[in-house]
Amino acid sequence: MSSMEIIPAADVLSAEEHRKIDAYWRACNYLCVGMLYLVANPLLREPLKPEHIKNRLLGHWGSDPGQTFAWVHLNRLIKKYDLNLIYLSGPGHGAPATLSNSYLEGVYSEVYPDKSENIEGLQKFFKQFSFPGGIGSHCTPETPGSIHEGGELGYSVSHAFGAVFDNPDLIAAVVVGDGEAETGPLATSWHSNKFLNPVHDGAVLPILHLNGYKIANPTILARITPEELEQLFRGYGWDPYIVEGEDPALMHPLMAQVTEHCINQIRAIQTRARTAAPGTPVERPRWPLIILRSPKGWTCPKEIDGHKLEGSWRAHQMPVLDPVTNPAHLKLVEDWMRSYRPEELFDQGGALIPELKAMAPVGDRRITANPHANGGKLRKPLDLPNFADYAVKVDRPGKTLLSSTNTLAHFLCDVMRRNMTSFRVFGPDETASNKLQAIYEGSHGKTWMAALLPQDADGGDLSTSGRVMEMLSEHTLEGWFEGYVLTGRHGFFSTYEAFVHIIDSMFNQHAKWLEKSKLELRWRTPISSINLLITSLVWRQDHNGFTHQDPGFLDIVTNKSPEVTRIYLPPDANCLLSVADHCLRSTDYINVIVADKAEHLQYLTMPQAIDHCTKGIGIWEFASNDDGIEPDAVIACAGDIPTSESLAAVAILRERCPDLKIRFVNVVDLFRLMPEREHPHGLSEREFDSLFTIDKPVIFNFHAYASLIHKLTYRRKNHDNFHVRGYKEKGNINTPLELAILNQVDRFNLAIDVIDRVPKLQASASHTKQWLQDQIIECVNYAHANGIDAPALRNWTWSSMPPK
Amino acid sequence: MSSMEIIPAADVLSAEEHRKIDAYWRACNYLCVGMLYLVANPLLREPLKPEHIKNRLLGHWGSDPGQTFAWVHLNRLIKKYDLNLIYLSGPGHGAPATLSNSYLEGVYSEVYPDKSENIEGLQKFFKQFSFPGGIGSHCTPETPGSIHEGGELGYSVSHAFGAVFDNPDLIAAVVVGDGEAETGPLATSWHSNKFLNPVHDGAVLPILHLNGYKIANPTILARITPEELEQLFRGYGWDPYIVEGEDPALMHPLMAQVTEHCINQIRAIQTRARTAAPGTPVERPRWPLIILRSPKGWTCPKEIDGHKLEGSWRAHQMPVLDPVTNPAHLKLVEDWMRSYRPEELFDQGGALIPELKAMAPVGDRRITANPHANGGKLRKPLDLPNFADYAVKVDRPGKTLLSSTNTLAHFLCDVMRRNMTSFRVFGPDETASNKLQAIYEGSHGKTWMAALLPQDADGGDLSTSGRVMEMLSEHTLEGWFEGYVLTGRHGFFSTYEAFVHIIDSMFNQHAKWLEKSKLELRWRTPISSINLLITSLVWRQDHNGFTHQDPGFLDIVTNKSPEVTRIYLPPDANCLLSVADHCLRSTDYINVIVADKAEHLQYLTMPQAIDHCTKGIGIWEFASNDDGIEPDAVIACAGDIPTSESLAAVAILRERCPDLKIRFVNVVDLFRLMPEREHPHGLSEREFDSLFTIDKPVIFNFHAYASLIHKLTYRRKNHDNFHVRGYKEKGNINTPLELAILNQVDRFNLAIDVIDRVPKLQASASHTKQWLQDQIIECVNYAHANGIDAPALRNWTWSSMPPK
Repeated sequence: MSSMEIIPAADVLSAEEHRKIDAYWRACNYLCVGMLYLVANPLLREPLKPEHIKNRLLGHWGSDPGQTFAWVHLNRLIKKYDLNLIYLSGPGHGAPATLSNSYLEGVYSEVYPDKSENIEGLQKFFKQFSFPGGIGSHCTPETPGSIHEGGELGYSVSHAFGAVFDNPDLIAAVVVGDGEAETGPLATSWHSNKFLNPVHDGAVLPILHLNGYKIANPTILARITPEELEQLFRGYGWDPYIVEGEDPALMHPLMAQVTEHCINQIRAIQTRARTAAPGTPVERPRWPLIILRSPKGWTCPKEIDGHKLEGSWRAHQMPVLDPVTNPAHLKLVEDWMRSYRPEELFDQGGALIPELKAMAPVGDRRITANPHANGGKLRKPLDLPNFADYAVKVDRPGKTLLSSTNTLAHFLCDVMRRNMTSFRVFGPDETASNKLQAIYEGSHGKTWMAALLPQDADGGDLSTSGRVMEMLSEHTLEGWFEGYVLTGRHGFFSTYEAFVHIIDSMFNQHAKWLEKSKLELRWRTPISSINLLITSLVWRQDHNGFTHQDPGFLDIVTNKSPEVTRIYLPPDANCLLSVADHCLRSTDYINVIVADKAEHLQYLTMPQAIDHCTKGIGIWEFASNDDGIEPDAVIACAGDIPTSESLAAVAILRERCPDLKIRFVNVVDLFRLMPEREHPHGLSEREFDSLFTIDKPVIFNFHAYASLIHKLTYRRKNHDNFHVRGYKEKGNINTPLELAILNQVDRFNLAIDVIDRVPKLQASASHTKQWLQDQIIECVNYAHANGIDAPALRNWTWSSMPPK
Repeated sequence: MSSMEIIPAADVLSAEEHRKIDAYWRACNYLCVGMLYLVANPLLREPLKPEHIKNRLLGHWGSDPGQTFAWVHLNRLIKKYDLNLIYLSGPGHGAPATLSNSYLEGVYSEVYPDKSENIEGLQKFFKQFSFPGGIGSHCTPETPGSIHEGGELGYSVSHAFGAVFDNPDLIAAVVVGDGEAETGPLATSWHSNKFLNPVHDGAVLPILHLNGYKIANPTILARITPEELEQLFRGYGWDPYIVEGEDPALMHPLMAQVTEHCINQIRAIQTRARTAAPGTPVERPRWPLIILRSPKGWTCPKEIDGHKLEGSWRAHQMPVLDPVTNPAHLKLVEDWMRSYRPEELFDQGGALIPELKAMAPVGDRRITANPHANGGKLRKPLDLPNFADYAVKVDRPGKTLLSSTNTLAHFLCDVMRRNMTSFRVFGPDETASNKLQAIYEGSHGKTWMAALLPQDADGGDLSTSGRVMEMLSEHTLEGWFEGYVLTGRHGFFSTYEAFVHIIDSMFNQHAKWLEKSKLELRWRTPISSINLLITSLVWRQDHNGFTHQDPGFLDIVTNKSPEVTRIYLPPDANCLLSVADHCLRSTDYINVIVADKAEHLQYLTMPQAIDHCTKGIGIWEFASNDDGIEPDAVIACAGDIPTSESLAAVAILRERCPDLKIRFVNVVDLFRLMPEREHPHGLSEREFDSLFTIDKPVIFNFHAYASLIHKLTYRRKNHDNFHVRGYKEKGNINTPLELAILNQVDRFNLAIDVIDRVPKLQASASHTKQWLQDQIIECVNYAHANGIDAPALRNWTWSSMPPK
């Protein structure tokens, strides 16, 4: 325990406060059980009958009473200290705890007026829960006050930290389920305290709810020794306080004592850090953490049919399963509900009695009305510099080699400088590896609240006020980022392409959250997009090899709603700048940007890039020679490396097959390929046909797995003539060109593809084809002998092409 | 520290042993640096020149010397105690440590004879490393002795535990990188010690390599206080021992002391547990864990150009980047390499001198020759009962409703009973939820080494010798499972469909491992397949709602090599039995089985099921009425729920459009749809056309996202007439039929689809279509009013159909 003095439990709560807090808690719990079971007779004004019970009982009681217990005690302190506090519910199906409180706070009825604060509204409120056409039993987007759904477990703590970064006034209380605590993402997210600065960030108050059971098993943390438990959290850098018991009469004073102490400890840490003399180093404090050890399904019947119920896994979901058909069990439910004495809690009309109503905070201090949990309310657009000012100079297309992400970094650096309290950059130890280190100049380097050593001064770029966040956990970073944007701020995440799969599931969940929020819930205001730069691409894994080759994240993205997903493959630096600017302005999307970190050819001037990115797809005239007529073939491409190889193929064909008419199409905005009725960015049939013809061969060189292009285009008229190249799981330690060759996305194979598909070439180009095949063999031999690609090929540029 | 007495460091190693261990270590380190830099002059018999250096320097030095240090000390104890020990290398690019030892042990030359133990072989050994056409810098499948690649970080500890379950004699030493330790999967996998039984399992000896830096940042665990570090691991349930320093002369005795102590502690724990009086409860011991705190890049140059090198992030990859162009840096590399005194270590021919050769274990005790790390060598096929004995009785198709997974559980229970030391079942707290709890009868319940309470006796199914493994971490379970099969055993994993995405990336990595092992490395013997049952499917999320609806894992699976992936969608229990039996016999695949846990209609007798599953796809005659003629339409389906809805659509059409000729095709083995040249299971064009016709409409009702069927069939002749239904991200809290309706995979929409596509129906069936549309509205209204589907629809069976 900290050195702060702890007020004796008996002195914290007056008898009157104790009585009222308990009553409010009973009201919460009554509502929780009501929504689990009832379609009618909501206040038990008549004896409970089978017809009052839902036909199908689907819900979870287990963690509800522990969560409502935490909630009522947090309410007391919000009122006492005028706290700005939000609540995140980690345990999966614990929504009744949040829903019941939202209803008692009056917020639910404000958001959903038909769920009014009277018997009629209460009945609707009960019925809709976990009911077809109604709401879920997680804290779904429909739940006021929620920024964390908990449908998939493991992200509550990282979401909570994301919420409080740069919100010095905010406390995020986060109840962590002891089941959830077994997940990997949760287990490492406790270390987030090494990235939180008490001066300019708020505080996270975790409440580990150790109620002992998951669906069907005890939890690990509930079955280790108390010493181990305390050591674990001390080892994680927290200061744990334990509230343990099952008698509410004893638990209320204890919880009041511990929550008050923890809030005061948080305030003391913050005051100390914020009032220190200028220049005093900011030290990582030990933040308090509460371990609430209460029975699973607390306050439900102790036993059922001779089996332990309260305090066992049987109380995880519906403690009593068959009240409709089993009269004794109906009685059990009725007695249980009446044990909360609803007649003392609600007035004749069905509203909470004024004495209890007064226990809740008011206005925006009500937890479920806190604007931080509806972040669009607080969001201000970024102050963005003009991205065109960061343009690279392009005299002729395909002449200069440079790293597009490095160019982007200078733009992001100034975005950072202009938005020093509302923009963060995230990356798993790879910001510099991804050539984005120029951001550090504007970001005070990287966030680091763990120990600093003298040698860190030499290039460490670490600072307690750093704003680039790096931890070797994609899960934690994504969780922080989500929490940050859900509370109204902005960010940018870069990660290795192959390992973005680590957060596939987080992507899915956030996309689902956005879709519901955006399409169905008008009261949820738009939040900033998640901007995800995928880099260190499949095609440049010279030493990482096969494990780092997987461009399949885009397949995951295209499974989600077109209303919330965008994919961009900018071919060069100016396009990347244009795309990034667009993404940083957007709301309610997940923007996926695919751009490699290595040096690549540059093609478009900034005006051309803006035009190209605005259209999202277009013919590159400089590489086409089909002026005004139907081409013999279309060479299309998406992605920086495929674009470069496709252009090299065009150069070869232009030289060796001068009569061939080629149209060169580049795709930036991948969803332009989809039919317009299926995606808002989709090209019309006419636009598509005018680019790709209706009958000419299309050789499409794609960054990722070829099947994705077929998935997007199979309804198009000319689809049967689409011949798509992409990654096909062939690779090891290879030079760039060798890897391209193995997967047939290289210049030589593409030229062969064209020759094979254009009838007029099939006779005339046979020795060109042989030459191409020889080139392939030579390239591989050279690489295996020398460890690099032949210089002539590595340094190839389009700008050496003679004018058309 | 434990109560065991620790031998004073000075007494552990004799001066002679110390000298020889250090020499062996220098040989390892010399080889590590050699493979990073050299293409020629491998033993520095002439002065180092630029032309001896690789053209492109790609590799990682950082963790190599710490790992080789651990290795040489483990070697000492293997010899001293005749230990059966394998080594897992957690840090990403640390392969040089394993490769160098494999070469010194003579194993590398046995496996790859051209890398012989002489100068010529050594030169090849150096050159191939991280070189195009050569081998990677992770412990790839090409690395003898490796079962853990480390290309993606986070799974070393779970792999190590998987290796030792049911291997009482085996010790898995696992070096964990402090970067890796920040990942979520690693952070929770420390809790694996709650699942390891000292009587019948072996031991894991983790060596946390705290060398302080990742690519570009310090690591968290290196920058918390020593007290926190110790508390953390005590909290995780381990007994940590710290070996810290940088002077090899001091570090050798310390490491010898600690490793010897830990090995003896392991042996003492095991002896105590294994010699206890019968009936004595097995208690969870505190296993030892070593924290090796050595400088990053230990023994490389201390500084470069005035910057700290050894002990900083600059030593993570190549400490000296430009020896070819910078003569001073060339000198630095040469001096560094010569500091290991290669002339004392290798004889004239280039072989390790006999005195040092004798330091390595011999035969299969050599770590990189240990057969556990090439599990197929030890694998014995499962002793399987006849799956047909578990068949459900099917009088008429589509009459009985039952849970297919429950049927499967009885079979798996007996598989377990017959293979009590080589078969385990895995599931994240969901085995019972997935209706597989019958397995517990044969498995001694579930593995549980944490505390037991009296109440666990009532239905807890927990036991220290339980063989079903449940933890709320898909990552840990998959890691255990992989480690278990990689060491020659068998298993079965069931998990919720939506959350299998949590292990997308692990699937990718294991598939890549299998592909290389199977197709390129003959010396790697086949291992058992990973069998993954995906259940609690998208279509039955009545109360979990939208977050639990994602069938996209199959898209991930189809991106990987057809040589190692299989997908099965058995439509009923007998098919599920047949498929499961097939999967349990197979090797070197990842088998994905999709089958729901809820009650569904049963269709096929066991002989029919065997026939159907053997073919993988087929016409169901009982549901077809196109006897011998071309049908008007093909109704095809894959997946249990789509099959049921498709049959209901056929029933409606049969009744209301009696002239319609329908062919009903069911797909079990999804890859049958692919062209035969692209997948070994692919149907020939002729077979495909004979099932699906070349010009009739095909209404394909698919379990997952519709695009996957297009991805598999777009090259087929009749593809333009394929009309695929599948999940399209529409859902919330819905009854089963309502959810099907929202996504148009329901009977009514399917019937409409057929009517819309069969010309002869378009006039005649207009009021049928209206009736179908009315049904849809009625169904949804009923669900919203009553919370359930209308009983007539819920209880629908095909067997009420009049005979054809």
